[in-house]
Amino acid sequence: MKVAIVSTGEELLTGETVDTNSSWLAAAVWERGAEVRRMVTSGDDLQGVIWAIEQATEHADLVICTGGLGPTEDDRTAEAISAWTGVERVEDAEALRQIEHRYASMGRVMAESNRKQAFLPAQATIFENKWGTAPAFSVEHAGSIVVCLPGVPYEMRELFHHHVLPLLQIDEPPTLVRVRTFGLGESQIQNMLDGLDMGGAVLGFRAHLPEVQIKLHFPFSVKSAERTLVVERVCQRLSKWVYCVDGGDLAETLVGVLSDAGETVALAESCTAGLVSAWIADVPGASAVLEEGAIVYSNESKTRAVGVDPNLVTTHGAVSEPVSRALAEGIRSRSGATWGIGITGIAGPGGGSDTKPVGTVHIAVAGPNGVFHQHAVIPGNRGQVRRRAAGGALALLLRSRPVGPLDG
Amino acid sequence: MKVAIVSTGEELLTGETVDTNSSWLAAAVWERGAEVRRMVTSGDDLQGVIWAIEQATEHADLVICTGGLGPTEDDRTAEAISAWTGVERVEDAEALRQIEHRYASMGRVMAESNRKQAFLPAQATIFENKWGTAPAFSVEHAGSIVVCLPGVPYEMRELFHHHVLPLLQIDEPPTLVRVRTFGLGESQIQNMLDGLDMGGAVLGFRAHLPEVQIKLHFPFSVKSAERTLVVERVCQRLSKWVYCVDGGDLAETLVGVLSDAGETVALAESCTAGLVSAWIADVPGASAVLEEGAIVYSNESKTRAVGVDPNLVTTHGAVSEPVSRALAEGIRSRSGATWGIGITGIAGPGGGSDTKPVGTVHIAVAGPNGVFHQHAVIPGNRGQVRRRAAGGALALLLRSRPVGPLDG
Repeated sequence: MKVAIVSTGEELLTGETVDTNSSWLAAAVWERGAEVRRMVTSGDDLQGVIWAIEQATEHADLVICTGGLGPTEDDRTAEAISAWTGVERVEDAEALRQIEHRYASMGRVMAESNRKQAFLPAQATIFENKWGTAPAFSVEHAGSIVVCLPGVPYEMRELFHHHVLPLLQIDEPPTLVRVRTFGLGESQIQNMLDGLDMGGAVLGFRAHLPEVQIKLHFPFSVKSAERTLVVERVCQRLSKWVYCVDGGDLAETLVGVLSDAGETVALAESCTAGLVSAWIADVPGASAVLEEGAIVYSNESKTRAVGVDPNLVTTHGAVSEPVSRALAEGIRSRSGATWGIGITGIAGPGGGSDTKPVGTVHIAVAGPNGVFHQHAVIPGNRGQVRRRAAGGALALLLRSRPVGPLDG
Repeated sequence: MKVAIVSTGEELLTGETVDTNSSWLAAAVWERGAEVRRMVTSGDDLQGVIWAIEQATEHADLVICTGGLGPTEDDRTAEAISAWTGVERVEDAEALRQIEHRYASMGRVMAESNRKQAFLPAQATIFENKWGTAPAFSVEHAGSIVVCLPGVPYEMRELFHHHVLPLLQIDEPPTLVRVRTFGLGESQIQNMLDGLDMGGAVLGFRAHLPEVQIKLHFPFSVKSAERTLVVERVCQRLSKWVYCVDGGDLAETLVGVLSDAGETVALAESCTAGLVSAWIADVPGASAVLEEGAIVYSNESKTRAVGVDPNLVTTHGAVSEPVSRALAEGIRSRSGATWGIGITGIAGPGGGSDTKPVGTVHIAVAGPNGVFHQHAVIPGNRGQVRRRAAGGALALLLRSRPVGPLDG
């Protein structure tokens, strides 16, 4: 099956927005064994959108469009579909009901301008959007199916899973196995895997700071047992850098592991300032695991909130191994959590010195068997240093547990 | 001047790589007043690349292509240009000299496969690439200029600055003013601005959870004084929902405002669990402003860390106005910060009830003039509820200050 992707929106043509929808859709389609042949981007002008749809349908059986379904004047996808197919738009009673229902469920009244979103090509199949107000839809015309999804990434992804996947007709889907790693770059992983027998799998990478996913695409012909062997080989070669296979991200993995073990965690964060806690709390069910956190940005707060001995800060500096250990032990003993995490570092751009350059980070994990510590000088800008340090803290806790997530 | 952008590479069609080159180029072109009309992406197949160039040249005076200039078999841009123009490729002596020179300067000998990179359409203008080995070039054909740049972002950007900028003929650059709002959706803003004299400005929106930016594109002909009037009119109409014009996001605005006033903030976060603190800490210079934070997820931690009276939780529930007030006052008095923020809510998916559905959030800001409180039932999933609540806390603090960021 040949697929083309259309993105519409002036924000794409002005460079305001990086088009992550197209790459997400391409990966989602490709992983299931269909082939994306073209991507086309236009602005919000009617002629542009029509052109984009025409171009895409010339090269594909299935065209996935994103954007242009909102209530405002610059949302013109339905109008473009109507012009392209020659089928008038009508107010779709069911679509209108869904929009009104969606507003009602939020305790709000639908604005009159939202009525426009129910004004859809007469022959369209409507997809209920439970994640936003814009109804999605598909039409068949000139030998192609055109699916129109909203541009909001979260809504687009949910609608894709629920309504577009069934349209992808795949005979021999490949199998994708994701090996999730933390602490290595793509080229390091590539070098480490050099010469390894991959059993016909095609290797791909997806870097999502702070982790790198290794994607192993196995052709349909490779049987399950062979796949398992290859995955084991990859995990063995990369050893401790792998934190899970086909699971969630670092925070999801940690919440799962701790939750299964009936363990809890508390955090004292300086340079990451709540980032690790926020990632953990973003996982449904985090309340069973996340006991407490302290954001100890100033030196005084380190003492006040977690009881760090001020002499440690004076002698070793706020960014030092002893302070990270005191943070981890302090928050653990204060909260009564199974695990305490302490993080202190210099995120930049200021604050660095010759002996402690920007990016210097100390992480400690206090647990039932003592305190584990890690030190690194992390490259990158402020945001990158903070994200990598946060990932490092989650990974250190996973590695500090007697049984890792892969041994269980 | 009309511009189109062509990206080539299988890694774009498989979603392996997010196409940041196109958005970077679009922004660079747009900021200088030229207009990007189309973006087209193909794989590495010759027919695909030719199609992309043809499509792009139909809609633009200047086409910027990236990718496909490397030494390997799947680099076919020069071949495609040759097929499109009907002009043969020849080995360009100057291009070959530049490649050899580049390798020599790295202390290496050019591989025979790199010779291919000097095999270029006979009529091409060669651009010396001092940042990599692939020579870039341009051709003129059928009324358009087509510029071919390598896909490596760093090389592409340098070559753009040195060789493509001079080709952009701009007479009258437009002006973009961004009005940043929090608390309203796009359609609500559109309704509120209905009928307002926009003085020729084109209205656009950019939603980036939890805020919505209003983009006012003023044609060159609109003078500065007129622009100011329009912006004032928009701000007046949207009143308190606007938090800044042409500035940073909520956290950047807050750090700037507090930092200028010599004020500090401390936070006690339950459902947001460090998200607000992490956003503040992501702003360089946050250390002058962010005093301390407490992540008080469990009921015990609310009492232990911030001194919330357990009776308040028993009587009103953890998610209630009195508890949010106690959190804000508790962290303020403990930390000595100018401002204390308290947030408690039900992020979901579980934990809701009839009287307190998922999305119920109470936010309080304690300051020199007392405590301000806000209550909302926020729609969306767990991540959305948490991000909107976090934005709400930053916005409430900005609105609680006697002088807002727009009055100064």
